[in-house]
Amino acid sequence: MKANVHVTLKRGVLDPQGKAIGHALQSLGFDGVDEVRQGKFIELDLAETDPEAARKAVEAMCQKLLANTVIEDYRIDLVG
Amino acid sequence: MKANVHVTLKRGVLDPQGKAIGHALQSLGFDGVDEVRQGKFIELDLAETDPEAARKAVEAMCQKLLANTVIEDYRIDLVG
Repeated sequence: MKANVHVTLKRGVLDPQGKAIGHALQSLGFDGVDEVRQGKFIELDLAETDPEAARKAVEAMCQKLLANTVIEDYRIDLVG
Repeated sequence: MKANVHVTLKRGVLDPQGKAIGHALQSLGFDGVDEVRQGKFIELDLAETDPEAARKAVEAMCQKLLANTVIEDYRIDLVG
């Protein structure tokens, strides 16, 4: 079973990497880009086949390692 | 209109960041994680309202800046 995890900065937390991308896009001539936010996308290949157990395990991984829950949100999508 | 862009390493390209996460998960006691791949997730807030024009613009942004198309794939999802 695969799990896709999105880790994004919480709204209100400054995102210098996103800002840098926004400026770079502008200097390349792409107008009309209001805001850019960059997050992480993590694909996990799990041996677990039970969706409920898999979600629980990935939830624990996010809490302990994948996300800094003080400033980041995470979203878990189980695939297949 | 919002666009979500996933930038991921092509299959076959070594992903040291993903490997590091995999090892860290294992040393934290999370067994049963076979492979980990890390990519980027970029949220763009666009002034453009026409989906076709928006997709074309984001496609150009990916080609020129957001992705290194030699080693990375990208996926564009338009939202709202």
